[in-house]
Amino acid sequence: MPVPNFEREEVSPLTLNRLSVYLRVLRQVQDAGIRRISSQELARRYHLSAAQIRKDLAQFGEFGIRGVGYEVDLLCQRLNDLLGLNRDHSIVVVGMGNLGSALARYLGFNSGAFRVVAGVDNDPEKVGRKVGEVTVQAAEELPAIIAEKKTEIGVLTVPPGAAQANYEALADAGVRGVLNFAPERVQGRPGVPVKNVDLRIHLEELAFFLREG
Amino acid sequence: MPVPNFEREEVSPLTLNRLSVYLRVLRQVQDAGIRRISSQELARRYHLSAAQIRKDLAQFGEFGIRGVGYEVDLLCQRLNDLLGLNRDHSIVVVGMGNLGSALARYLGFNSGAFRVVAGVDNDPEKVGRKVGEVTVQAAEELPAIIAEKKTEIGVLTVPPGAAQANYEALADAGVRGVLNFAPERVQGRPGVPVKNVDLRIHLEELAFFLREG
Repeated sequence: MPVPNFEREEVSPLTLNRLSVYLRVLRQVQDAGIRRISSQELARRYHLSAAQIRKDLAQFGEFGIRGVGYEVDLLCQRLNDLLGLNRDHSIVVVGMGNLGSALARYLGFNSGAFRVVAGVDNDPEKVGRKVGEVTVQAAEELPAIIAEKKTEIGVLTVPPGAAQANYEALADAGVRGVLNFAPERVQGRPGVPVKNVDLRIHLEELAFFLREG
Repeated sequence: MPVPNFEREEVSPLTLNRLSVYLRVLRQVQDAGIRRISSQELARRYHLSAAQIRKDLAQFGEFGIRGVGYEVDLLCQRLNDLLGLNRDHSIVVVGMGNLGSALARYLGFNSGAFRVVAGVDNDPEKVGRKVGEVTVQAAEELPAIIAEKKTEIGVLTVPPGAAQANYEALADAGVRGVLNFAPERVQGRPGVPVKNVDLRIHLEELAFFLREG
């Protein structure tokens, strides 16, 4: 089934995040053996907004049947296709310090549609070390690695101040998108989107619940 | 100025995440020396939805003036208060492996309203090591550390399978909220909210833009 056609640029990052959340909770519903679920029931179970679910999904086609709800398997499949998760994506991690090593080792970066195939660092002491399934290579190898392994996604876990230059190196070498975990916003160029991840957002969400009355 | 009064449970995690995003972009606007901004201009600059911004903010009071926009300083201050960021929060990291060490060292976990004050691990080899500003302590010290340092937030960076038990230990010892980075969902108990962080969500967002036509 083809993916619905629409302008990618028109979909906001917040909508995409919600689609990822829906897919994640639908997989839990699927694991629980449930075949059909209404937007109300999804909202109730996972503290989401039923109206928002219906609105978000309606942008991409007719997935639900009024009064019956969504076919769980079908909706999972469609969201999976829509999010581009129906094929493998290979990842190179740039900066194999603590965070880079953690991401290369586990945390779901080696499951489903994503696989870390290489890690580079400019510290000669780190080069040659085995981290999870990859062996750290020298930063100069980056263009060769990306060409050889057809690496699509670069993950930046470099120290502050080094993110933009490393983004440029990744884009020059042909990656198609970059995830930046460095505590510094990177400016993307056309055709090579960058997603700046600020892990503080999760702390801020928690802080809200800890407010003194 | 008191924080607007409303039921905390009624605010969805997605709304909270959007409020964090608004605060972050408003701080950039503030840094650029801009005093007033409209929801349309905010939306245009940061690829957000103007209608969503107005709707989200309207839940918490009257921040904007029609035709004039938002007072940037005032709105930052109010969002800061609303998110509970107007006072310090101390953090203990449980599991000082790669990810725990990375979080203890940098990534904004030691800036603004958040500070890592302790890190524990059950590996005797790690105990006594200096990581950033903390010295790794034994996991058995957890209750004493939390009591002594009045630690409010626990961050779980333990291996898969160990997250739920460590959440219970943190909750028993008196933390008020937990951020779980372990690739395993933790079930929270009343009064001690847990936020399960799945870093794959960021990869999934990127994958969307890499879909083949």
